[in-house]
Amino acid sequence: MALISIIEDFHPLNDAKLLYRADELKPSLHHEIVEPVGGFQLKERYSPEREEIVLQKVPKLAMGKGQNLCLDFGDHYVGYLTLEFSYTGSHPDAPAFLKLKFSEVFDELSENSDDYDGWISTSWIQEEYIHVDVLPARVTLPRRYAFRYLKITMMDTSPKYKLIVKHAELLTESSANYKRLEPFTTGDELKDRIYNVGIRTLANCMQDVFEDGPKRDQRLWMGDLRLEALANYVSFRNMNLVRRCLYLFGGSRFPDGRISANVFIKPAVEADDTWMFDYSLLFVVALEEYLQETNDEETLNDLYDIAMQQVEISLRHCDERHVVDDEAANAAFIDWREGMDKRGCAQAVLIFAMRYARRLARRKNDYSQANWLLEQLELLRKAAIEYFWDEEQKCFVSEGQTAMATQVWMVLADVLEPEKARELMENSERFLEPYKMATPYMHHYYVTALCRTGLLEKAEKHMKEYWGSMLDAGADTFWEAWDPDDPKASPYGGKVINSYCHAWSCSPVVLIKKFFTQQK
Amino acid sequence: MALISIIEDFHPLNDAKLLYRADELKPSLHHEIVEPVGGFQLKERYSPEREEIVLQKVPKLAMGKGQNLCLDFGDHYVGYLTLEFSYTGSHPDAPAFLKLKFSEVFDELSENSDDYDGWISTSWIQEEYIHVDVLPARVTLPRRYAFRYLKITMMDTSPKYKLIVKHAELLTESSANYKRLEPFTTGDELKDRIYNVGIRTLANCMQDVFEDGPKRDQRLWMGDLRLEALANYVSFRNMNLVRRCLYLFGGSRFPDGRISANVFIKPAVEADDTWMFDYSLLFVVALEEYLQETNDEETLNDLYDIAMQQVEISLRHCDERHVVDDEAANAAFIDWREGMDKRGCAQAVLIFAMRYARRLARRKNDYSQANWLLEQLELLRKAAIEYFWDEEQKCFVSEGQTAMATQVWMVLADVLEPEKARELMENSERFLEPYKMATPYMHHYYVTALCRTGLLEKAEKHMKEYWGSMLDAGADTFWEAWDPDDPKASPYGGKVINSYCHAWSCSPVVLIKKFFTQQK
Repeated sequence: MALISIIEDFHPLNDAKLLYRADELKPSLHHEIVEPVGGFQLKERYSPEREEIVLQKVPKLAMGKGQNLCLDFGDHYVGYLTLEFSYTGSHPDAPAFLKLKFSEVFDELSENSDDYDGWISTSWIQEEYIHVDVLPARVTLPRRYAFRYLKITMMDTSPKYKLIVKHAELLTESSANYKRLEPFTTGDELKDRIYNVGIRTLANCMQDVFEDGPKRDQRLWMGDLRLEALANYVSFRNMNLVRRCLYLFGGSRFPDGRISANVFIKPAVEADDTWMFDYSLLFVVALEEYLQETNDEETLNDLYDIAMQQVEISLRHCDERHVVDDEAANAAFIDWREGMDKRGCAQAVLIFAMRYARRLARRKNDYSQANWLLEQLELLRKAAIEYFWDEEQKCFVSEGQTAMATQVWMVLADVLEPEKARELMENSERFLEPYKMATPYMHHYYVTALCRTGLLEKAEKHMKEYWGSMLDAGADTFWEAWDPDDPKASPYGGKVINSYCHAWSCSPVVLIKKFFTQQK
Repeated sequence: MALISIIEDFHPLNDAKLLYRADELKPSLHHEIVEPVGGFQLKERYSPEREEIVLQKVPKLAMGKGQNLCLDFGDHYVGYLTLEFSYTGSHPDAPAFLKLKFSEVFDELSENSDDYDGWISTSWIQEEYIHVDVLPARVTLPRRYAFRYLKITMMDTSPKYKLIVKHAELLTESSANYKRLEPFTTGDELKDRIYNVGIRTLANCMQDVFEDGPKRDQRLWMGDLRLEALANYVSFRNMNLVRRCLYLFGGSRFPDGRISANVFIKPAVEADDTWMFDYSLLFVVALEEYLQETNDEETLNDLYDIAMQQVEISLRHCDERHVVDDEAANAAFIDWREGMDKRGCAQAVLIFAMRYARRLARRKNDYSQANWLLEQLELLRKAAIEYFWDEEQKCFVSEGQTAMATQVWMVLADVLEPEKARELMENSERFLEPYKMATPYMHHYYVTALCRTGLLEKAEKHMKEYWGSMLDAGADTFWEAWDPDDPKASPYGGKVINSYCHAWSCSPVVLIKKFFTQQK
C-alpha cells in the first residue's frame, strides 16, 4: 500500500517542552457502569439467525460445549468488561474455555475472522480466548473494547458441568463529559438522530487523545483530529484535549520538522514514520481553528513556527510552475479510493492550508509572513487554474480524471470565483462516478464545499441521505467507510476489520450546528 | 464413561476442624528462575521437522505473520512464564497477536488441538492466544503451566513491524525442597536415571497439595496421593504435605461419609462427587503408612473413625457370600483398561485395605475392632479363593477374565499362601494379554506384587524395561499412560490431552529405594 511507509532508523524529533505541556493536559476520564439490555443466541456459530432470550433467563442458561450467548448492551460503548461466571452440575473438574467476540455492529457477530485476508492486521479484531480456572469467578478483562454486542462461545467445559454467565457489566471510559452538553434539537427528527449518533461517535472517540476509532487504530490521526475538534467546539467543548493533541503533533515530528500523519502515545509519545501531505497541512488548519475558539496565545506562540514550517516544507514540493510535485501528491491521503489521481487535491489542500497559515501570521502580527503567504498562495491558485481547470468540461481535471475530491478541494481552497464555484457544485452529480467518495471523511468535505458555494439545501439533502443511510443500516455510531450502494465494501479487503465508530464520521455534529439549523 | 458421575444436588459433608488443620498445613512454595537452553523453529505449523536456532540469535529473530519460535527450557518445569517482547521496523501500529503453546514433550508441539475429539475437556490443552497492545512489553502470564517446550506462533503483526522475543523466563513453583534430598546412587546408570526422573516427576506434582499432574488435572486424587506419599517418604520427606492431604480427604467427604476419589481446593475445599471403591479404601492404607513414618498420634485420633468408616461402608457392599457387589466393583478404578472386569480386583483391594485398617486399630489399642477386622477379612479372603480362584488354570478369574490386575491385587492382599502366590507371579507373563496394563499406576502394583513374592530380579527387570522405555521415548518426567508397544495410545482418545508428568508414575523412587538398592 502506498500509504504504508517503513523508514529504517526513524528517529522522530521530540520537543521536551511541548511534550511536557501535552502531558499536563491529560484529560480526566469519565466512567459509567452499563449492563446488557438484551440477549440472544446465534443458531449457528457463523450465522446471523438469532433466537431471542429473555434477559432474566440469561443467569440460568447452562452453556455446554459449542453453545453461544450474545449480549446486547443496547448502544455502542467503549470500556472494560467484567463477567461473572457460575455453573450447574458437578464442581467443575476442568477450566472453562471461552471465546469472546466484541462487535460494534450486529453483522460482525457472525463473521469468521479466519476468512479475513486483507492488509490490515487481524490483531485488531476484538476477539479473545480465555480460560477460567476456578468457578465461580468474576473476570475483568484487561483490554479496552469498543462494542455493542458481546458473543460468548463456550469452546469447552467438561462432561461434568455447564457454564452460567451470571452477570455482565461494562465500565465505560471517555473524556467527553456529557454534562457539558447543552440540550439541542433541530426540530427535524432525522437531523436530530444524525446529530445524536454523531455526538456518540465523537464521545466514544474522545479518550486520552482524540482517537480515530476506539476499535481501530485507537490513535491520534491528524485528519480525524481536525474534524473531531470542530465537532467538539459545538458540543463537549473540551478545549484542553484539542490543545493536548496539537502539542502532541508538534512535540514529536519527522526529523526534518514535518508533522506526522499520526502520533503514538504508548509506551512514549512518538511520531509515526508516515507522512501524509494533506494531514501535515491540516495541522495548520486545526491550530488556526483552535485559536478562533480560544484565543490561546500561549499555544500560538508555542506552535506557530511549526505550523509555518509545514507550509514551507510543502512549498519546497512545488515545481517551477508552482504545482505540487508527484512525491507530495502521492503522499496525500484525501480518501480511501485507489487509482484516484491526487495531484489536483494536493494542490488545493496546500492553498487551503495557506489561507489558515496567513490568518495565523496576522494573529501573530507577523505581517511580512502574512503577505508572503498571500503572494505564494496566489501563485499556487493561478497554477491550479492553469494546470487543472478544463474550460471545455467546466471542471478540474487531474491526470484526465474529474474526481469529486478534486472539485471539492478546489472549491474549499477558493481557487475559483464564487460564481464559478457555485456553478461547479450545482452540477456536482456528474463527478460522483467513477472515483466515488468512499468515506464519511470525504463526504464531509463534499458537504462543506456545497455549503461554501451557498448550496445549503443540496448540502443538507446529501448529509441526510448519506449519514441517514447508515442509520437505516443500523448504525449506533457512524462508520469509518460506507457506500450505501455497496454495503459490503471495505477499503481493507474485509468488513470484519472495519471501524464502526470512527471520528472522521462525527462531522454532522458540526455540519448541523453550523449550517443546517434554523436560526431563531 | 463409567467413572464420570454427576450427582444432582451433591452437598459434601465438611468437617470444619479437619479443614482448619489442613489449612494450617499449607506448604511453602519454592521458586527458581529458569531460562531456555535451546531454540528452534518448526518448518511447518503442525510438522515435527525442526530447524535449530543458536540461542544467542533468538533476541534478533524478527517474527512476521505465521512464523513460529520454539524455546526449549531443557527439562520439565512447572511455573509462571514471563516474556519480553521488542520489535523491528516501524513503531507497531497494531497489537501483536500471538499463540502460545506449552508442551511437556516434543511431540505435543506439532499436534493440532482441533483434531482432538475425546471425552476429556480440551480446556486442559495448554494453549493461549494473547494480544500485546504496547511494545516493548514484559508480559507475565497469570496461569501456571507445566512444560519443557514453548511454541510462540505469530498470528499477526502488521506490515509495519516484526516481533522479537527478547527474553523468556520461567518462575518455577513447587513445595518440594530439593535441599532436603540426600545424594543417592544405585551404581546402575539406568536405575539412577529412572530414579532421578521419578524424583522430578514427584517434585513437579508437589504443589499446594500432591497433584496428580501439573498439566491435568492439577488435583488431589487418592490413588495418586498414596504413591506420591510413599515416594516422598524416601526423598523430600515433606510429612506435613501428606498430613494436609489426608485431612483434606477426611475434611470433605460424601454425605454418607465416604472418602471421595478426589478433592477440589479452589475456590473452597470440596469433595468431588466421584466415588471410586478402591480409592476410598486407599485412604486407610495411606493413613497407616503415614503413621508408620511419623507416629503422629494427633492425626491418628483425628482420622481413625473416618478410616474405619471406609471399611464399614465397603463391607456393606459385600453380599452374603462375602463377595463385593457389582455396584462397588464397577466403581473401582484399578487401571485405564476398558472392558476389564473389576470384581476380583475390588475383592482384593478391600482385603488389602482391611489389613492396614487392622494395623490402625492396633495402633489405637482398639483391639476389639482389630479382631473383628481380622475375622471379616478372613471371610473375604476365603470367598476370594472360593469364587475367584480357578484350580485348573491356577490363577484368579473374574467373569472369565484372567487379567493381570486381578492376580496382582490378590497377591498384594495376601489371599494366597506365599508359595502359591510366588508360583502365580513366576508365570505372570501369561496374564499380560489381553487386558494389558495401561498405566504406570498399574505397573507399580505389578512390580510390588513381584517383590512381595520374592521375585526381585523379575520385578527390577520389569521396572527397568517399562519406565526405561519412557526414557528412551524422551521422558523428562514420567507419563500418565504409556504402552511401549503402542506409543500413540491414549486412554483419552488423543495424546494431546495426556499428562506427561503424572504423580502415579513417580513410584520407581520408592521401588528403587525399597527393593532395588544393594544394602551396604
